[in-house]
This record gives sequence, C-alpha cells and structure tokens, in this order.
Amino acid sequence: LESTVLESKQTDPLSSWHDTPTKQAIISYVKEVTNTESAKFIPVSNRVATFDNDGNLWSEQPLYFQLFFAIDRIKAMANEHPEWKTKQPYKAVLEDDMKTLMSYGEHGILEIVMATHAGMTVEAFDAIVKNWLKTARHPRFNKPYNELVYQPMLELLDYLRANNFKTYIVSGGGIDFMRPWIEAVYGIPVDQVVGSSVKTEFVIEEDKPLIKRLPKIDFIDDKEGKPVGIQRFIGKKPVFASGNSDGDFAMLRYTDSNTYPSFQLYLHHTDAEREWAYDRDSHIGKLDKGLDYANANGWTVIDMKKDWKVIYPFQKE
Amino acid sequence: LESTVLESKQTDPLSSWHDTPTKQAIISYVKEVTNTESAKFIPVSNRVATFDNDGNLWSEQPLYFQLFFAIDRIKAMANEHPEWKTKQPYKAVLEDDMKTLMSYGEHGILEIVMATHAGMTVEAFDAIVKNWLKTARHPRFNKPYNELVYQPMLELLDYLRANNFKTYIVSGGGIDFMRPWIEAVYGIPVDQVVGSSVKTEFVIEEDKPLIKRLPKIDFIDDKEGKPVGIQRFIGKKPVFASGNSDGDFAMLRYTDSNTYPSFQLYLHHTDAEREWAYDRDSHIGKLDKGLDYANANGWTVIDMKKDWKVIYPFQKE
Ligand SMILES: [Ca+2]
Ligand SMILES: [Ca+2]
Repeated sequence: LESTVLESKQTDPLSSWHDTPTKQAIISYVKEVTNTESAKFIPVSNRVATFDNDGNLWSEQPLYFQLFFAIDRIKAMANEHPEWKTKQPYKAVLEDDMKTLMSYGEHGILEIVMATHAGMTVEAFDAIVKNWLKTARHPRFNKPYNELVYQPMLELLDYLRANNFKTYIVSGGGIDFMRPWIEAVYGIPVDQVVGSSVKTEFVIEEDKPLIKRLPKIDFIDDKEGKPVGIQRFIGKKPVFASGNSDGDFAMLRYTDSNTYPSFQLYLHHTDAEREWAYDRDSHIGKLDKGLDYANANGWTVIDMKKDWKVIYPFQKE
Repeated sequence: LESTVLESKQTDPLSSWHDTPTKQAIISYVKEVTNTESAKFIPVSNRVATFDNDGNLWSEQPLYFQLFFAIDRIKAMANEHPEWKTKQPYKAVLEDDMKTLMSYGEHGILEIVMATHAGMTVEAFDAIVKNWLKTARHPRFNKPYNELVYQPMLELLDYLRANNFKTYIVSGGGIDFMRPWIEAVYGIPVDQVVGSSVKTEFVIEEDKPLIKRLPKIDFIDDKEGKPVGIQRFIGKKPVFASGNSDGDFAMLRYTDSNTYPSFQLYLHHTDAEREWAYDRDSHIGKLDKGLDYANANGWTVIDMKKDWKVIYPFQKE
C-alpha cells in the first residue's frame, strides 16, 4: 500500500514542466475548481477548455504549417496547371521565391490556399492531408509536421481531461486541415474542433451523394471570430483558454468574463535555441496587446525557455 | 438470479413501441452493428446518429413551435414598438390574423423571426427562450411546448446511447432556440446540436465582452444544408439518420452513402386523433419525394398510428 501511495505521488501529470509558478498556477486552479468543498467548484458540464493550435499546440515557424502544405500542393499539382509557370503568385511558389510570394500579401496567400483547399470532395481532401503528413518533413527538424507538437501541452490536455474538462481546439487554421490528424495526436475528437472553413455544397452526382469544397471562405476563426466560433459550435463559455498570440486575445477575454473562476494561459515563445523566440514584432503569431493585458491582469504566461523541460515528444528521454 | 434474468428480459428499451416490423428493424440493426463478431460491426467512434427535431422529436403543428415563440415575443414586445400596430406583418400578428400573416409568405415570417431573435446578447436570448417555455402553452394540448416530445423517440435516443451511439440534433430550427432546453429533455448536450443560426458579433462594451445576435441569417440547416451542417459541425458521416420530411431527404441520402451499414428512419404522421396526420400536401413537414424514395429503397418508415403505443410522456400510464 505504501509503495502505491509513493508511486502515485511520483506520477507527475505535468512531468515535462519545470516546477515554476506557471505549473503551480495551473495545478492550483485545477485542484480548486474540481474540489466539491470549494466555493470555486465548477460542475463537470461547465469545464470547457479551448486551445489555439498554431504556435500553441504545435509550432508555426518559419511558416504556418498549413502554408507549407499549400505550397507543397501547388508543386504537386503543377503538372495539371502549366499556366502556373508564368502566373503569379504560383510562379513564385514553384520557384521557391518566398519573398515574391509574400509581396502579394494576404491576397496571394488566399489564392494559393483556395487553389489547393477547394475543388474536391471532403473525403478527397482528408486523404490529401493524411498523405502529406506521411511524406512531408519540416525544414528545420526534418520530422513530420505533426510530430512538432509540444510535449508539455499534450500533458496539459491529458491533465485537464483527467479532471473532467472537455478539451476543444479553437484555431484560425482550417477545420478540415486539422481533423485528419488531431484525434491521434491530441486525443481531441473531430467534433471538438472549431476552425476556419471554406463553403461546401451537397450534390448528388451519378446517384452518389457528395460534399464538395468550394473556393470561397465560409468563416475565419481568428481574433473576434474565436468567441463567435465558440458560441456557434460549443454553445458554452469556456472556463479555461490557451493561446499564443493577439489572435487569441478576444477568446481569452471572453473566457475571463465567465462567472465561474476561469484561467487564461498565454504561451510566450522565448526559446530560440530549442524552438523559436518571437512576440511583438512577428508577422506570425504576433503577441503584443495580449502580453501587456496578460501581465496587467494576472493571466498566466508560459515562458517556454524557463517553464518547459522538453519541447517535442521525440526529445523526451 | 432467475428473477434478475426475468426482469432484464422484461425491461424493453423501446417499451412505447408496438412490436411491429419497424421496432424489429431498429433492434435488429442495432444488435447487428454492435456485435463484434458480425461483418456489419461499426466501431464506437463511428456510431453517429442524427435526428431532425421539428415533427420528429417534438410536434410541429398547427405551426412550428418556434413560430409560436416568435408570435408570442412580438406581442410581448409590442409596447416598445407602437409602430407595429399599423405596420405589417406585425399588425397581423398582434391581431391574431394568421391568414394575413401567412399572405406575407417566407419574407413575412423572416421579418417576425429577425425582430424577435436578434438585437440581444446570446445570454439574454437564452433567458427569453427559457422563460417562454415556462409560461407558454400549446393551443391544443395546453402543455408547455417541450412536453410535446415523442415518448417513443426519447426511448430510441436512450437505446442508441446505451449502445454507444453519439446522438446529435440536426434541425432547421434555430440552434440557440434549442440549446436552452434540449439537454434536459433529450439528453443531448448543447455541443451536439446543428441548427440554423443568425450571425453574431463579439464586442467589448464598457469593458464587458459580449456576443450579440444580429438580424442576419448565417446558416439555414435544412434540405441540402443538413449534410453541409453535419460535415461542418460533426465532421463524420452518420450511420443512423432520422427525420420526418423532405427537408431531411438529403441527410438520409447522405447517411445512406456511408460505407458502414446505415439506417434511415422516416416518421410518417398518420395519427390525426392522437397527434396529426399530414404528408404530401402539407406546408409544414411536407413528406413526398422522401416517402417514395424510402418505400422504393427499403428505408424504415414509422407509421405513428400503428407503431407507437403512446405519443407524449404525459400520456404514459
Ligand atoms: Ca496561434
Ligand atoms: Ca422535421
């Protein structure tokens, strides 16, 4: 019996986290709100936890991974589109000329995304994403993109679920780009993802019912869109929200207005050596207003360098 | 031990259903697909069951209940809107002149719905719906509207869940009109509802984060919209789909294309005495093309009069 007690004491649910105030704040919150004796107790049905994905559960440098996917798809589809050799922004993608691609701004990115994310059935797109994850490798780490997920965050997801929180992804990324892999990687089922989407249509072709993806934005699940997406898909205000950029600021403020005790968690990328360091001046994952507000209002900020023992699962000993 | 066996044999999960081919078809399907020894076995994660609401889980006559709600709201709000006394279609509503209201067609209905379903926060709308359910009474049965749910369908929902199906509502009705009451009545949580919606916006007013309902249609979850809504919200093709009108035809065909064995269930309103009888010529819940297709393709059709022992829970002995 004594050895069992000892063992359970040694089983740290957040073992990849250093024993810093960040970890202590998380554990103290969870212990408090799951304690039926506490005035801060939250009933299970209200334990809703929402997580941003890019730069929060997996990396997002040197480009959003979904943009790497779009670029790889343009190259894979180039044979069917000979006109792309001379047409921008496709030409820039085919020539690996990122500077020219970026000069086309959001409009150029949108064109690349629409050319690669629409025009097929939802099943076909699902298969394309799965195949890409099998074959593509990240330029810095030479690993499949879905291995570049944060080990400490996987533990946090597990820890919250072990305490009867329901974990959701709320991401600016494409909902159907995430669904093919998130259940295996994060333990989050496909109906607990809120994300950006293209319009789709239901058609019957040759007596076969199909859902086709159209090259038209349906919903952008970013900034003020995140609380809107949460309300539409989840229907409850979260008590726990986690993100890494100003794109999550609205979601964290929304969560902070919960009448139940709530927890706001920002991941600050401070580790250029093991991952990347960026915040106020970054084009990707800009964290500026949110960081000031977090510091002024007692939100919890993860300092990646100081708070995390390891970054990725493949680095675990 | 013998008495326990006897007791469990007597506990019929579908006790409000007569022992007809309809009930037998449901039970035989569920037994087959949950049997690990069967070639028709469906893994738990793919046991997705979608249910239409109006006329399928609760009644929809003599008007959609949500339209009764809108009419009651117009009357409750009339003091703040003196102009409605002379402005159509409001005047018709205030004078209980349904004929004139209906003469304004869908456009008139939409105006009534937008005037009553938008312009407030999501929390305020939630409270309005809950209060209406407490006070409003159905004109024929003199019961709260959410007591006019079908006892046999409640048993079917329970039976499917007991067999590890995940049950969802997929309704043309408003998602935020259903959420305030469906968990208590159907046992379906608020994040397992797909429905029609108005656009919303996230704003911060006087330092308070709010989500406001706007008088603009966001999504109509009906007909071809149902498979689209299922794909967007649930992300998996159902194996079991249940509806009562041509508005569900696309959902049932979509489900019928599942590579797993699937079940399509239509509720045919055949009981003018205990509920209502209507199908091909009805403006509400028209069932025409779907009924022909069901009969020609071996889908299961509930004959309300012949298949159900009771209609509503309050009629149970
Ligand atoms: Ca992010
Ligand atoms: Ca219906």
